[in-house]
Amino acid sequence: MSNINNRSRRKFIQQTAIAGAGLALAGPLQVFAQTNNETMMKTNIKSRGYAGKDVAGKMVPWNFERRAVGDNDVLIDIKYSGICHSDIHTIKGHWGPQKYPQVPGHEIAGIVTAVGKNVTKFKVGDHAGVGCMVNSCMQCDSCKSGEENHCETTGMVGTYGTPEASSPTGITQGGYANNIVVTEHFAIKIPKNIELKYAAPLLCAGITTYSPMMKVKFRKGDKIGVIGIGGLGHIAVKLAVSKGAEVYAFTTSPTKINDIKSFGAKEVIVVKSAEDLKPYKGKLDFMISTVPYAYEMSPYIDCVKKYGYFTQVGQPINGELAINNFNMIFNRVNFNGSLIGGIPETQEVMDYCANNKIYPQIQVIKASEINDAWDKVVNKEARYRYVIDASTF
Amino acid sequence: MSNINNRSRRKFIQQTAIAGAGLALAGPLQVFAQTNNETMMKTNIKSRGYAGKDVAGKMVPWNFERRAVGDNDVLIDIKYSGICHSDIHTIKGHWGPQKYPQVPGHEIAGIVTAVGKNVTKFKVGDHAGVGCMVNSCMQCDSCKSGEENHCETTGMVGTYGTPEASSPTGITQGGYANNIVVTEHFAIKIPKNIELKYAAPLLCAGITTYSPMMKVKFRKGDKIGVIGIGGLGHIAVKLAVSKGAEVYAFTTSPTKINDIKSFGAKEVIVVKSAEDLKPYKGKLDFMISTVPYAYEMSPYIDCVKKYGYFTQVGQPINGELAINNFNMIFNRVNFNGSLIGGIPETQEVMDYCANNKIYPQIQVIKASEINDAWDKVVNKEARYRYVIDASTF
Repeated sequence: MSNINNRSRRKFIQQTAIAGAGLALAGPLQVFAQTNNETMMKTNIKSRGYAGKDVAGKMVPWNFERRAVGDNDVLIDIKYSGICHSDIHTIKGHWGPQKYPQVPGHEIAGIVTAVGKNVTKFKVGDHAGVGCMVNSCMQCDSCKSGEENHCETTGMVGTYGTPEASSPTGITQGGYANNIVVTEHFAIKIPKNIELKYAAPLLCAGITTYSPMMKVKFRKGDKIGVIGIGGLGHIAVKLAVSKGAEVYAFTTSPTKINDIKSFGAKEVIVVKSAEDLKPYKGKLDFMISTVPYAYEMSPYIDCVKKYGYFTQVGQPINGELAINNFNMIFNRVNFNGSLIGGIPETQEVMDYCANNKIYPQIQVIKASEINDAWDKVVNKEARYRYVIDASTF
Repeated sequence: MSNINNRSRRKFIQQTAIAGAGLALAGPLQVFAQTNNETMMKTNIKSRGYAGKDVAGKMVPWNFERRAVGDNDVLIDIKYSGICHSDIHTIKGHWGPQKYPQVPGHEIAGIVTAVGKNVTKFKVGDHAGVGCMVNSCMQCDSCKSGEENHCETTGMVGTYGTPEASSPTGITQGGYANNIVVTEHFAIKIPKNIELKYAAPLLCAGITTYSPMMKVKFRKGDKIGVIGIGGLGHIAVKLAVSKGAEVYAFTTSPTKINDIKSFGAKEVIVVKSAEDLKPYKGKLDFMISTVPYAYEMSPYIDCVKKYGYFTQVGQPINGELAINNFNMIFNRVNFNGSLIGGIPETQEVMDYCANNKIYPQIQVIKASEINDAWDKVVNKEARYRYVIDASTF
């Protein structure tokens, strides 16, 4: 702990110098914000959002408090918040028992309205985002190497539902709300050349598919299969196409064919049974599955070439999947899971999408439409990501 | 087909020249064998072995015929035949319905007693072995690159139980017998500096563990975990130790501790519950599991370092295993299965073990003891590989 304190003190001295310089250049808004900061850093922040109250998973309006803005924190005025299937799984207890009320949401995009005195990464008025984690130990090898999602000591602190002493509600509360307080390190800079409503889904759907695809170091022309073309899958298709892959999209929804082709997929395979997968056996260099329920994986895994990789990012109920080792010994494919990505890689995908105009296909909804949107996500009716207009909370 | 015939003809011309040269140098045994060959190449070979007659899996003596020795075949007088858990699974129908009578056995070591006229790899009197496959297409990329086990057209022809037109019984028949006829390519040369009884288990247990371990290109001092210290596992320990790894052996049998230490393991972990695995979480560079039944894999997979590999070579009933994707996204381990190895790699492990004096720990039994030995294998009482003395068939 003394080490951490020493580091904070050192950083504080550096920051103060920089903040002084910043103030000299700042306009009236900046000065106002600096004043405002003093209050915000002493009192809890009032928030207005939608929370699940129990395992039934009905989302209702809820007023709650977040911690005061600490020295290393930023306060973000949320503008848009994406709806991820994980929100539904979590609140409904599919991944284990939860504490309620709980505000889900980990695709958060907004504008910085206050910064702690040590903050250097952001200034008031910057666009900023928050994804699936809001803290980690920052001391272990994984944290130091930019894989905070694999923090080896405390584990990453999830954006919602994780016990957190500093949170007035006892757990972290997510992005279905009008604001959020977060350690600056865990906020992502959103370039101003991408609209906030498009930036939001990149913070989970984007990084979750980008990270494992980039890890296989595929080359231009490599064949990438994407299974499940929803919120994550449709971004996976766009990202892979943009990076030069030949994309094979596997869906159970024939009504998505034209959309998916417009995303750049070379082929769309509507899968009614395992028979439909046989022509692709051993043909693909890499596959990523976004399917968030247990499904018959083997005939999909068989589509990957020997020694290739298959990554499951969709998370089924309780994480339980069946794998057939007869298939695995013959197909010789490497199966893995993948959990979002680290902060540097999340920044990377944000910048990449902004610079290359890769935008999720979204439907903006009001807060009052959340429950209806959740039903549609479960029923595969989303086209392709719901994003909540946070002004309606 | 015309290509194959052309190749065969070309090969035949080359072989004849070599055979002529060989004959000039040969002693009386060789000449006798050459004469004998002519009969053997016209009539089926009579065999005596032990077969399962139905799914009950009781092994009984059985006389049957093998195909005549073809131009590219060798006839091997079997001296020793190892007992693999796969024999039991197969005959008992655990991996799917079978044809009976069926002679199992795919760890076969003996002496060549006849060779077809095109054969160059062996001469009469050579020591030779047969592992888990006896044929493949030899035309596809996998076959051409020495991975006949991954033949992409016909699939590899298993040593027993695979439908085969040339076999008088309609299926391939394995090594619990006094002889076998096999295409020369699928026979392994056994150096004379390793006893045949030690060579036999290398043809399945040896190559099955050697192949995936070598594929991870581990370095001296790397930490390798071996799960299940039976027929396969004890050889895995010896091989990994010999290649410089620090070996962690996981067993459920406390009575094996001293043996396993004598094989060179650095640590032996007796696993009573998942709790016993916690100290090893994220510590090992690679793990191989030889467990031939479904088991709780996740806490074992968690022992591997991020981005490391976990290979499951033990084959559970119907291949079915449960995998938890929550563990997989956090541990970020690559899971795969592995099926023996190709012929060149099987030759490699045979030569390596002969040259480095790596011998399986075996118990030689008579044919009449097979049923008892099978029970002991299932009950984890084998120490560590039963090898049948083929003179007792």
